[in-house]
Amino acid sequence: MPSLDPLSTLIEYLRFPSISTQLEHSADLVECAKWLERLFTSMGLQATIHETPGHPIVLAKTVPDPQKRTVLIYGHYDVQPPEPLEEWKSLPFEPRIDEVEGKIYARGSSDNKAPTLAHILGVAKTLQEKGSLPVNIIFLIEGEEEIGSPHLDSFLQEHSQELGCDVIVISDTGMAPGNLPAMTYALRGVAAMEFIVRGPTCDLHSGLFGGAVGNPLTVAARLIASLHDDQGHILIPGFYDAVQPLQSWEREAAKALEKVSGGDASIKELAGVTELFGEVGFSTLERIGARPTAEVNGFGGGYQGEGTKTVLPKEAFVKLTFRLVADQDPKKILELAATYLKKQLPIGVSLEIILGHSGEACFIDPQSPNGKAAQDALAETFGTAPFLLRDGASIPIVSNFKKIFGVDVLLLGLANPDCGMHSPNENMLLSNFLSGIRLNQILLEKLK
Amino acid sequence: MPSLDPLSTLIEYLRFPSISTQLEHSADLVECAKWLERLFTSMGLQATIHETPGHPIVLAKTVPDPQKRTVLIYGHYDVQPPEPLEEWKSLPFEPRIDEVEGKIYARGSSDNKAPTLAHILGVAKTLQEKGSLPVNIIFLIEGEEEIGSPHLDSFLQEHSQELGCDVIVISDTGMAPGNLPAMTYALRGVAAMEFIVRGPTCDLHSGLFGGAVGNPLTVAARLIASLHDDQGHILIPGFYDAVQPLQSWEREAAKALEKVSGGDASIKELAGVTELFGEVGFSTLERIGARPTAEVNGFGGGYQGEGTKTVLPKEAFVKLTFRLVADQDPKKILELAATYLKKQLPIGVSLEIILGHSGEACFIDPQSPNGKAAQDALAETFGTAPFLLRDGASIPIVSNFKKIFGVDVLLLGLANPDCGMHSPNENMLLSNFLSGIRLNQILLEKLK
Repeated sequence: MPSLDPLSTLIEYLRFPSISTQLEHSADLVECAKWLERLFTSMGLQATIHETPGHPIVLAKTVPDPQKRTVLIYGHYDVQPPEPLEEWKSLPFEPRIDEVEGKIYARGSSDNKAPTLAHILGVAKTLQEKGSLPVNIIFLIEGEEEIGSPHLDSFLQEHSQELGCDVIVISDTGMAPGNLPAMTYALRGVAAMEFIVRGPTCDLHSGLFGGAVGNPLTVAARLIASLHDDQGHILIPGFYDAVQPLQSWEREAAKALEKVSGGDASIKELAGVTELFGEVGFSTLERIGARPTAEVNGFGGGYQGEGTKTVLPKEAFVKLTFRLVADQDPKKILELAATYLKKQLPIGVSLEIILGHSGEACFIDPQSPNGKAAQDALAETFGTAPFLLRDGASIPIVSNFKKIFGVDVLLLGLANPDCGMHSPNENMLLSNFLSGIRLNQILLEKLK
Repeated sequence: MPSLDPLSTLIEYLRFPSISTQLEHSADLVECAKWLERLFTSMGLQATIHETPGHPIVLAKTVPDPQKRTVLIYGHYDVQPPEPLEEWKSLPFEPRIDEVEGKIYARGSSDNKAPTLAHILGVAKTLQEKGSLPVNIIFLIEGEEEIGSPHLDSFLQEHSQELGCDVIVISDTGMAPGNLPAMTYALRGVAAMEFIVRGPTCDLHSGLFGGAVGNPLTVAARLIASLHDDQGHILIPGFYDAVQPLQSWEREAAKALEKVSGGDASIKELAGVTELFGEVGFSTLERIGARPTAEVNGFGGGYQGEGTKTVLPKEAFVKLTFRLVADQDPKKILELAATYLKKQLPIGVSLEIILGHSGEACFIDPQSPNGKAAQDALAETFGTAPFLLRDGASIPIVSNFKKIFGVDVLLLGLANPDCGMHSPNENMLLSNFLSGIRLNQILLEKLK
């Protein structure tokens, strides 16, 4: 097995314009997958390329030892489009190292090539140093993450036997503010619905009928207004029933993070607002990471043009998503919301509710054996205890992994906070990349 | 002066395709105006055609006698487009008499050629019978009513001296349900505003920020919801202060009308709703005619496409109009509403309020001398006391006439309820047309 130089291997990997959303790059994705396959093979792993109706999935495994635990490491080799090109200081697929900053600039550097490669090179290094690994390893590197992983789920279902594992590791999130090591232990779930309030069969003249006919826009607005009290609490009966209360160590963790993150001032700046607003009784980080929401994403109805049209419109639509936390059941939440909305409907209008997609929240107890192993590995790698993060977003693949395999998913982000993921001049701190290699070596030892 | 046969004169008038909205018919409007000029001249009136940047205005006057009161009769010779042509049973500008129905079918028959001509022929008949009129007469027949009378206001301002009058008569509304005689004694005013709620500088990810940032759609919905209580009363402080309470004769008049109009069942059918909804404490006709409203005409913001987009949008707009009743001041109402909305604004969002057009409500006391004269003339013409109507719509020309000349405007509709105004197969009951001639003769006598 050849010795793999981390930097030159990373540069090779970053040269592939593996843009999953642009059809003209399909061949580049295939070439990139083949490059990964050769890399894995050179390390002594059993590597295979699996065709999908879209871009291929690369799978690589050690020869399984039934005495050892199995760790599945997930990553993706596809990248976001680099546009707008004119905003890049160097070409997106000509990796450039800035020696002063200690960064490598290229599309896909932080999302997700360097973090994935750190795990691969960690495994390679351990194999070279010790000849074997403390655990069985499965690498699953897909090529469609940036387009919503449309073929991953069916692949996981079909190969669930072959992919059986004890724990999953994903490094596709970020370090804590200040580029400090972090473990993300919770993600919010999501439940979507649209509702349509219908009144008269066609738009009416607001002079001839206004005052005597229920206005669907007013009714829809009143339904939305009924979702919250003026302190930001959600008023749907039963909505909070299954919510795990924040434990004291979590509130401490959020406070610790707030100190390094620049707190509310930094979030205001990111959001572009002068004041934050949220549920009374919780800090901003808690509101985002640990509390469920009812958010209106879209609302429309009646006259949309310039000026005035004195119409009493026939209908109004509202697009609504709930962000959920453990242990809220998305289906149950949608049911409760539908019941609540229906109950309030005044006479003269009808309500159609269309349920949308949903996904469960994720919670991986950092005090569980796997969680502790991850925390220990992070602490040993970076020389400082990791921050514990609750992420407000929903990452469907994580929920799906958890659901299909029934195991913990460790989210160990390696991207620096200023990495420019999805933006021009995407970059990766080289020290993070090199730390990632070491993190993998220590982590696998801890997870054995 | 030649004797004017009502029917053949009406048919001549109806043959002009005086469609004001279609430029290719501009010459037809001019021809129609000239025809009116000739008609007035043949009656011995001083007739003139006044050019405007659009279609001409026809003015005709008797030689003023300073001892007599002056009555201005307003009408319009332009008509709606006849499309869709395939739905007409006969050609829209080839007047057809249905002898069984006693109706004449043609575009413009009820709106507004026959009612206007009835007044002209009433004057002609009185002149022929008596050689003079009991009052001075000014006819003002415009050619742009169906396109919003864009040049009427400036014409009225410029000719206010010449057009000075004691009372104005307009027959451009309808008879009461059951084709019963009616006087419309009130029209609602209108006041429009748009407001925009702004939050973050750009649309945010509802996972990364949801729960901590005020959502402009939610705020806009809560502002709308704050406009009414659940009984349909408007909650803006001071909103009802200037509203004239319904007098007992008005409630009686509304009840009487309800009996002949088919009541709520008929309004439900017209509106296409299963149940009506409005302010508690008032009947449907009162809600429409005699009570002010706050109606949302348009609402938009956030994602408007198919499915879901988990966005926390940067802004929301609401288009709002208030229908007003006497003596509400539109400017004052907009001020009260703006103050109320601003007061409730939560932190983290801003509110921009854009004031739109407004017009005052109209109220012509049917018990005033002019009102009584109109009621008496209607009763004498039709052999039964007229119904007294409050119309929920706003007719800007009426408010403008009232404002510029400071006199009563008598709204004496002649169109049968099933006249199909603005629709295919527009028609006019010939008996209404002939009654209109008689109404004019009696009315001028009563107004002297």
